[in-house]
Amino acid sequence: MSELISLDPQAQAQLFTDARTANTFTDEPVTDDQLRAIFDLAKYPPTALNAQPLRVLFVRPGQARDRLLEHLADGNRAKTATAPVVAVLATDPDFHEFIPRVFPIRPELRDVLGADAVAREGTARFNATLQIGYWLLAVRAAGLAAGPMAGFDAEAVDKEFFADSGWKSLLVVNIGRPGPDAWLPRLPRLDYDEVVRHAA
Amino acid sequence: MSELISLDPQAQAQLFTDARTANTFTDEPVTDDQLRAIFDLAKYPPTALNAQPLRVLFVRPGQARDRLLEHLADGNRAKTATAPVVAVLATDPDFHEFIPRVFPIRPELRDVLGADAVAREGTARFNATLQIGYWLLAVRAAGLAAGPMAGFDAEAVDKEFFADSGWKSLLVVNIGRPGPDAWLPRLPRLDYDEVVRHAA
Repeated sequence: MSELISLDPQAQAQLFTDARTANTFTDEPVTDDQLRAIFDLAKYPPTALNAQPLRVLFVRPGQARDRLLEHLADGNRAKTATAPVVAVLATDPDFHEFIPRVFPIRPELRDVLGADAVAREGTARFNATLQIGYWLLAVRAAGLAAGPMAGFDAEAVDKEFFADSGWKSLLVVNIGRPGPDAWLPRLPRLDYDEVVRHAA
Repeated sequence: MSELISLDPQAQAQLFTDARTANTFTDEPVTDDQLRAIFDLAKYPPTALNAQPLRVLFVRPGQARDRLLEHLADGNRAKTATAPVVAVLATDPDFHEFIPRVFPIRPELRDVLGADAVAREGTARFNATLQIGYWLLAVRAAGLAAGPMAGFDAEAVDKEFFADSGWKSLLVVNIGRPGPDAWLPRLPRLDYDEVVRHAA
C-alpha cells in the first residue's frame, strides 16, 4: 500500500489490488436492492455532456437466461450458468433525448447530436464504456465479484433483448459471490515505463 | 449511504458520491511518485485478454503543454492552463505485441490480432476506455481531482505527440487539487428506471 494514496487501504484492496474477476459463483442470491445500490454509486462519476448513455439489462436464471446463454462464446456458458444474476451492459442510441434535462446549459445539443448519427454513436460508446469501468468497481464496492465477458454475439443479443429499445450491447457481466476455484493466479501487469511517458 | 454497499463510507464519498470534476486547480504540485501510485492502483481491474491497451502521456507546464493547449477546444484552454499536470490518455495499436507475456495461456492471439486491424482497434479502444474509467477513480483515490475533457483535436494531438509511437488519443484529463470555484452545482443523474431493465 502506498502512502501516496489517501483512499482507505481496505478500500484499495476491495476495489483494485485484491479484487479479482470471478469465474465461479456461490448460489447466494443478489437482491434487487443490491443492484439498485450499485447503480446509485456508479451513476456519479463523469460522462461527457453528463449524458450517461450506459443502459443495463439484468437477467436472472430462467428462460431469459437460457436465451442469453445461447449467444455466449462456448467458454463463457458454464460460468454464466452459475451466476445468480447476469448484466448485459449496453448503450442507448437515443441517449441524446435526455440532454435538455441532464445538461440544461446546452439543451440545443439534443438536436445537434440527433442530426449526427456518427458523433452520437461515438459519444454513446465511449461514455457508456467509461461508465462500465465505474460500474465494475461499484459491483466490487457492494462486496460482490464481477465477471466481465467480451465473448458473445452482440448482434444476436441485441435482436433477442433489445429489439424494442434499440439498445446496443457492449459487455456481459456475471455478478455474485465468488465460488470454489473462482480464479487462476493473477496474470502479469505491464510496467509503468511500458505504459507511461512524460512529455519533455 | 447504503448498508448494501460494504465499501467504507468515506471511500464511497471519495470515489463516487462526493467527488467532482474540477475545472480549476491550485498550484500545489502533483509529484511523479503520485502519478506512479495512481498507475499502480489503476493497473489491476480487468481488461479483455489482460491486454491493458491504455497508454498515458503526462504533460507539465512548459513548451509541451503550450503545444497541447493549441489543440484543445476554446472552452478547455483556461482550465488546463491552471492544472499542475495534464494526462493525454491513449491506446497503443500495437498492444497485441505484449499478448504472449500478459496472456500466456493464448500466446497465438498476438498473431490473430496482428492480422485483423479492425478487431485490434475495437479491442484497443474498448478496453483502454474501460481502463480510463478505473484510472479516473484511481486519481480520486490519490486525493486528487480529475478534469476529463473530450473537446480536443485528437488527430492534431496524435501528430504532435505520438508520431513515433502511433498511440491514438482518447481523452485529455487535468489533474490537481481543486482550486477556487472548481465546480458548478452537480447536474442531475438519470433515474434507475430510465437506465435499468430486468428481463422477464
